[in-house]
Amino acid sequence: MTETAPIMALDLPMLDPLPPETQKYFDICQDKLGMIPNVLQAYAFDIEKLNTFTAMYNDLMLGDSGLSKLEREMIAVVVSSANRCWYCQVAHGAAVRELSGDPKLGEAMVMNYRVAKITGKQRAMLDFAFKLTETPDRIDDPDRAALREVGFSDREIFDIASVAAFFNMTNRVAAATEMQPNDAYHGAHR
Amino acid sequence: MTETAPIMALDLPMLDPLPPETQKYFDICQDKLGMIPNVLQAYAFDIEKLNTFTAMYNDLMLGDSGLSKLEREMIAVVVSSANRCWYCQVAHGAAVRELSGDPKLGEAMVMNYRVAKITGKQRAMLDFAFKLTETPDRIDDPDRAALREVGFSDREIFDIASVAAFFNMTNRVAAATEMQPNDAYHGAHR
Amino acid sequence: MTETAPIMALDLPMLDPLPPETQKYFDICQDKLGMIPNVLQAYAFDIEKLNTFTAMYNDLMLGDSGLSKLEREMIAVVVSSANRCWYCQVAHGAAVRELSGDPKLGEAMVMNYRVAKITGKQRAMLDFAFKLTETPDRIDDPDRAALREVGFSDREIFDIASVAAFFNMTNRVAAATEMQPNDAYHGAHR
Amino acid sequence: MTETAPIMALDLPMLDPLPPETQKYFDICQDKLGMIPNVLQAYAFDIEKLNTFTAMYNDLMLGDSGLSKLEREMIAVVVSSANRCWYCQVAHGAAVRELSGDPKLGEAMVMNYRVAKITGKQRAMLDFAFKLTETPDRIDDPDRAALREVGFSDREIFDIASVAAFFNMTNRVAAATEMQPNDAYHGAHR
Amino acid sequence: MTETAPIMALDLPMLDPLPPETQKYFDICQDKLGMIPNVLQAYAFDIEKLNTFTAMYNDLMLGDSGLSKLEREMIAVVVSSANRCWYCQVAHGAAVRELSGDPKLGEAMVMNYRVAKITGKQRAMLDFAFKLTETPDRIDDPDRAALREVGFSDREIFDIASVAAFFNMTNRVAAATEMQPNDAYHGAHR
Amino acid sequence: MTETAPIMALDLPMLDPLPPETQKYFDICQDKLGMIPNVLQAYAFDIEKLNTFTAMYNDLMLGDSGLSKLEREMIAVVVSSANRCWYCQVAHGAAVRELSGDPKLGEAMVMNYRVAKITGKQRAMLDFAFKLTETPDRIDDPDRAALREVGFSDREIFDIASVAAFFNMTNRVAAATEMQPNDAYHGAHR
Repeated sequence: MTETAPIMALDLPMLDPLPPETQKYFDICQDKLGMIPNVLQAYAFDIEKLNTFTAMYNDLMLGDSGLSKLEREMIAVVVSSANRCWYCQVAHGAAVRELSGDPKLGEAMVMNYRVAKITGKQRAMLDFAFKLTETPDRIDDPDRAALREVGFSDREIFDIASVAAFFNMTNRVAAATEMQPNDAYHGAHR
Repeated sequence: MTETAPIMALDLPMLDPLPPETQKYFDICQDKLGMIPNVLQAYAFDIEKLNTFTAMYNDLMLGDSGLSKLEREMIAVVVSSANRCWYCQVAHGAAVRELSGDPKLGEAMVMNYRVAKITGKQRAMLDFAFKLTETPDRIDDPDRAALREVGFSDREIFDIASVAAFFNMTNRVAAATEMQPNDAYHGAHR
Repeated sequence: MTETAPIMALDLPMLDPLPPETQKYFDICQDKLGMIPNVLQAYAFDIEKLNTFTAMYNDLMLGDSGLSKLEREMIAVVVSSANRCWYCQVAHGAAVRELSGDPKLGEAMVMNYRVAKITGKQRAMLDFAFKLTETPDRIDDPDRAALREVGFSDREIFDIASVAAFFNMTNRVAAATEMQPNDAYHGAHR
Repeated sequence: MTETAPIMALDLPMLDPLPPETQKYFDICQDKLGMIPNVLQAYAFDIEKLNTFTAMYNDLMLGDSGLSKLEREMIAVVVSSANRCWYCQVAHGAAVRELSGDPKLGEAMVMNYRVAKITGKQRAMLDFAFKLTETPDRIDDPDRAALREVGFSDREIFDIASVAAFFNMTNRVAAATEMQPNDAYHGAHR
Repeated sequence: MTETAPIMALDLPMLDPLPPETQKYFDICQDKLGMIPNVLQAYAFDIEKLNTFTAMYNDLMLGDSGLSKLEREMIAVVVSSANRCWYCQVAHGAAVRELSGDPKLGEAMVMNYRVAKITGKQRAMLDFAFKLTETPDRIDDPDRAALREVGFSDREIFDIASVAAFFNMTNRVAAATEMQPNDAYHGAHR
Repeated sequence: MTETAPIMALDLPMLDPLPPETQKYFDICQDKLGMIPNVLQAYAFDIEKLNTFTAMYNDLMLGDSGLSKLEREMIAVVVSSANRCWYCQVAHGAAVRELSGDPKLGEAMVMNYRVAKITGKQRAMLDFAFKLTETPDRIDDPDRAALREVGFSDREIFDIASVAAFFNMTNRVAAATEMQPNDAYHGAHR
């Protein structure tokens, strides 16, 4: 699997040249991350789609929240594991390893979050995200109550739900397009 | 069920007053649609979240696409039916009835899209959206090939995927928060 | 979907002429309901089958029971929703709207009964009917106990079970034959 | 498990005395079968329910059909196996053994019909019955076409569907009431 | 189904002649059981595979354990029923009938163990084995705690798990090869 | 997750001292692998169980076969991913990385084997192993035919089945006991 696959299985090339603002954003990615995440390149055939995606992503994953960035990445990986999404397990698994400094935690989120040595509060958060992914129609008052009982505020419940829901979206865009994660993620933070 | 339930089961009140631009947007909704869709009111506890949601929604559902607005709404309802999402089946079922002028088509999208009298191309589109919803991990080259065979371009495949993926997100936000659709949808365009 | 589809996908025409008693029954339907329900026309290729079907239907849905007629129709729709049966969701969804005077309740039974604002006793009844539909092999003493705890008698439990079971039958006859509901149901009691 | 369990887990005793016609019917059963099948005793708390049940049963399982009685019993067991129904697998498994004179065939219908050495036409019939049981919402034109291709008429397709549907009903009545089959079935025709 | 099918659907004939030790083992089987179980004949194309299989089988099913031999056979059949394995339901169903002297118990293990009249401790054991079979990823501390609460030691929990796990293996070897049980099992101990 | 968890959630300590042969085997492991795999330590409360396990493991994974050792490890990981087994995904994922020299391939086997860039023959092998894991009851002649068509011999089909079946066993022992893989696997061969 060492040869470089195309970024996605749909023939939708990046705009060339990119609009200056997009080019600038990609340059910043290259500088800060050492790469331009492939998801951004995949969306760059249409700048409006790229922009709405990044705006939502940045608000959810980087904005203010009672959930730590690590916790949001944990939700991302657990949802992506439930959906068996190649791109998101690779990219966000790396993020869990980086933010936690604990490679084993990243592996547990990918493989079966139930084995992870995490707090009871985090376990409740991931149980909610997993159920919301697998059987959204069965979510009911007792599920929200379980989150409140371990100390989550209604705003935090909204954030758990929004992050889990967002990755249910991106997992499906990635699956439908067979999006390939950047190779650099695989060995990072091991 | 005639009494008015709260818009969602989380206690996250709308900002009061709303920022002027949001208030203006809501006023336009009220004028044009005769209501402010509850999903917008639900998100209005945080204007950044409201804005990223509406930007993505408007691009996907109202922007340029090889898919008609009706076809995008058909995908929306089929995905929401697979996930049994109360809010989205009600609101987008009404949209299918309105855009098609065919109340029976709206019912079929909600109840079991396989009975609908639609084109083979539309059926392929909905089969893809349904499979992407139910088992995203099983989507593979033959699924994309099936769409190309009936005449969809790669850009249109992206749009089918994006719309299906988006409703997999919103269905879960609605389920997690028990979001209530506006009562006016139920009787509309019957 | 406005053109009239054949009543079912099997070529089994109604007896012509119908036996006098059947013709009389159909005339009464036409007078009272303004239509002859398609299910009756579908079965009318064989009068014995029609008669055993209507006898069982009438006993279960119209006979004496501790369950109200509305409650029996609610079970009918919830089962039909679990099985995604086009005919029965349409026809019995209309019945729920008519008997309750609450169009929203009919929609909730179709889309996801868990959102409905009903009594706890009714919720227990529908939970039992749904589980009996989805995983009949998992029904056990605690499921019956849950019904008794909210006040159902053993006779009423039998009726809940019988109605749920009956629609598990009719849903499958309708699915196997692609039975079409009368168009008049769609707009009725909205 | 040698002690005699009550016929069902609901406290609904048989009428005592039974109406003369019912008593006569039960006497005939005792004479011909050496027992009164427990399902009849279970329904005998309400003669109307007993009568509608037996009328439908007799029409479907004993009436005229292009399907042999053995084939109808094979469908009965395959459906009951899919639903893991104790009563119907026991009683109708015995019927398959009796009608076929092949105890192994009865076991195969209970355990996994795919291993049975039957005709391709019978296999198609059982595949349809199994799919109709498990995922009625997915039945579509190709499923009916597959039956026609192996030589089934539309009337026979109706009969396959009706028998499969009927046992989806009785399996659920039996599950909900924990109905016990007569002990005599277990050793019969081995 | 009376004709003799080949032992498996793969063309892997027994060594001929068998090594003396294997021949001796088969002779003992013939003497004691009146047959050489087909699974042994199926593995006899490769003596190392036969030997590792029988060594593990004998340790688990015949070795020392806090579980009775009957209880281990009950687990075997429940797992094989969950996986609908023809070979193992037939062969081990017969073993349950033999060891218990209760043909009905053997049938219950095959058809739906939840109806069996067994002790609460045995029910907990079978519930664990069934869940471990169906959703091994969901097994967690409360599942082990439930076994300890009804009196199982950690060693006995290991044995329950090992027997259930072993039949999850053999069920799949039998399914993949369409292994046929010896005809003699069907009528035995009825 | 950096602290060292006990090797399993059951209190079954290793024999102390170990029998000399076992001690020698463990010493060899330590020398060659730099560790004693935890699964061996977990089984070492009972030497007979340890020995039958290692004999079967060594025959299947290290013995003669038309499948390469890498291919057998690929099957191991795909099965373990289907069952979401923590221990086996970690330990055998490392083996895939080691034997292939391709860390990305190991990740693909864990996350979703359908994305892997492997030969069509290998894909057929993994599709068979996955189906055998998920729905063993649905395996039938066409599944074996598909393997023969891409060039597998009946002996190789047996090996594919046996390896897949074996990991369906070990995954469940590991799940039931919450077995922990050695920490050294996580960073190995990245």
